[in-house]
Amino acid sequence: MNTVRIKEDILTRFVQALLRGAGVDSNEAADMAAVFVWTDMIGRHLHGVNRLPALIKRFKLGLIGSPCTPAVTQPANALALLDGHNGFGQYLGHFAMAKAIAMASEHGVGVVGVRSSNHFGAGAYYVNLAARSNQIGIAMSNSVPKVAPHGGVRPVLGTNPFAFGAPWREKGAILVDFSTSAIPGSKVLEAIANKTSLPEGLVVDNEGKSIVDPQHLGQGAILPFGGAKGFCVGLMVELLSGVLTGAGVSHGVASMYEDFSRPADNGHFFLALDIARLMPLPRYYARTAELVTLIKAAGKSGAAQEVLIPGESRWRSFAEQESLGVGIDQKTVERLTVLAKECGVNTPW
Amino acid sequence: MNTVRIKEDILTRFVQALLRGAGVDSNEAADMAAVFVWTDMIGRHLHGVNRLPALIKRFKLGLIGSPCTPAVTQPANALALLDGHNGFGQYLGHFAMAKAIAMASEHGVGVVGVRSSNHFGAGAYYVNLAARSNQIGIAMSNSVPKVAPHGGVRPVLGTNPFAFGAPWREKGAILVDFSTSAIPGSKVLEAIANKTSLPEGLVVDNEGKSIVDPQHLGQGAILPFGGAKGFCVGLMVELLSGVLTGAGVSHGVASMYEDFSRPADNGHFFLALDIARLMPLPRYYARTAELVTLIKAAGKSGAAQEVLIPGESRWRSFAEQESLGVGIDQKTVERLTVLAKECGVNTPW
Repeated sequence: MNTVRIKEDILTRFVQALLRGAGVDSNEAADMAAVFVWTDMIGRHLHGVNRLPALIKRFKLGLIGSPCTPAVTQPANALALLDGHNGFGQYLGHFAMAKAIAMASEHGVGVVGVRSSNHFGAGAYYVNLAARSNQIGIAMSNSVPKVAPHGGVRPVLGTNPFAFGAPWREKGAILVDFSTSAIPGSKVLEAIANKTSLPEGLVVDNEGKSIVDPQHLGQGAILPFGGAKGFCVGLMVELLSGVLTGAGVSHGVASMYEDFSRPADNGHFFLALDIARLMPLPRYYARTAELVTLIKAAGKSGAAQEVLIPGESRWRSFAEQESLGVGIDQKTVERLTVLAKECGVNTPW
Repeated sequence: MNTVRIKEDILTRFVQALLRGAGVDSNEAADMAAVFVWTDMIGRHLHGVNRLPALIKRFKLGLIGSPCTPAVTQPANALALLDGHNGFGQYLGHFAMAKAIAMASEHGVGVVGVRSSNHFGAGAYYVNLAARSNQIGIAMSNSVPKVAPHGGVRPVLGTNPFAFGAPWREKGAILVDFSTSAIPGSKVLEAIANKTSLPEGLVVDNEGKSIVDPQHLGQGAILPFGGAKGFCVGLMVELLSGVLTGAGVSHGVASMYEDFSRPADNGHFFLALDIARLMPLPRYYARTAELVTLIKAAGKSGAAQEVLIPGESRWRSFAEQESLGVGIDQKTVERLTVLAKECGVNTPW
């Protein structure tokens, strides 16, 4: 598929203009544009500008509110709760992680739970905010049920992403960001859209048999990654970001693409930890570099394939798109062109 | 194998007497006995009293110290660091989680890092302490390198356990506790001891080929669970409990069974979060019960096999051993009998 390349700053201004043109609050639009463009730059295109048409559709239907003016309560030094007032997940995620980072700077650790939010995109963005502040970051979100518990066949949990970030190099943190399902929900949507089959053992019907045919994938349940252990991680995400925040839990969360009868009510969980309280930063960086060196040296002798640190391939994508422009596939360009017309905004292509 | 059944209180007093007889501080011995016996009661026998001979051997060699009198610094309200002075991991784990719980009661969240410790046994014990205090608990530990990074073939990370606990029922919390390797290190030791083969795809040689033969398992590297995602979790455990605490990292951690030249220098990471700061406890319990109901209903229609909540089978084991007595296998009974003689303690069998 052809790819259009747009410089980061031009794309960012376009996304801001699109959101403002649709009626989104301009401060929120600025934070959101940063999230979308960064996400495209690390190569996670399915959580980048590609999501704008669906999000703006929900906004226009009144299912997402802006300005949302989140209500913050801080019941204890290291713990805060945000009622997102059904605002955009990208804005609330940015807001909540910034709050967690500020709390960690003051009290060593900051935890912020968010309820009444929406899909927050790629958790890597938020943990990278923490890493850029020389902090450890953790971000989780629940999502619409698509995943069966270990031993079950019907969807109860979302693909519930888990993200972890730790400072590493000047340009680039260690970035962990994975769905707790055997395959990300976005990849299932992609298979359905592109009419491609999936391998066995990822999606099952209600008798537990594998579904591989894209025509039937929508009716199946995705299995957890890594069996019982992956289910445990997904359940932890649901408990921390759903149960504990007062957000929707399991079927209490609505699909952003399929359910236009109610707000999504996603919940998130953010944690930041201030490294410099535990050891001088140069010592932390030296210790991390030593661990990375050992990991890099753990490959097959003589094998060309290198061992990658989590996030490393993302930062390569980032550097490439920083220099060549952010790649947007032709289909997304077409959809954004339609959206730009509706919003009265000029396209950069 | 024959199993001897010993009542919980009798076994606990015996373990305390054994430890004291070996010269361990009596306060430390009391906390440690509680950890060992509880771990046997939930059915995790490989982390229970079975470990006593190896631990006491290290203690007698001066590789573990008691009393260790851990040095606590609290650089911020929600963050503390423990220098374990090379004390027993079970004692330091209990001490550190108790500190995290106290900090969470005051500040909403408490994080405690531990360095200069030893193998802490089953993380489930510590997160259950948090759950019994109506808190969320997280416990992690690094350990001697046995696991290759994703894409690598040589051991860099330990089997680095991750544990998570959340209150659920009066008698029993949701308990997640897993090694981040494809198979626990203890199961590999068991296969070597019992001379049984392992399935393909769990342990590899330095060319990446599967090792299944128990005679060669000791030379291989265990793969992470769940591929790249499991490696990410194991790396997070190493960063939080090793790098960040100042403990040994990777090969800086020594084997409790094989390396008698230096202290083990394990690091741990504990987190507690006070639920009642976020919502009234009855509401939390009701929301958790609703989620559990959905998970239980996600099985195959008509299938006999039930869907289990993490920890559920552990609590069944606990109830059984509470009523019948704690089961100790014959081999462990023999080893403890020898140890009891050395320590001048009468056995309860």
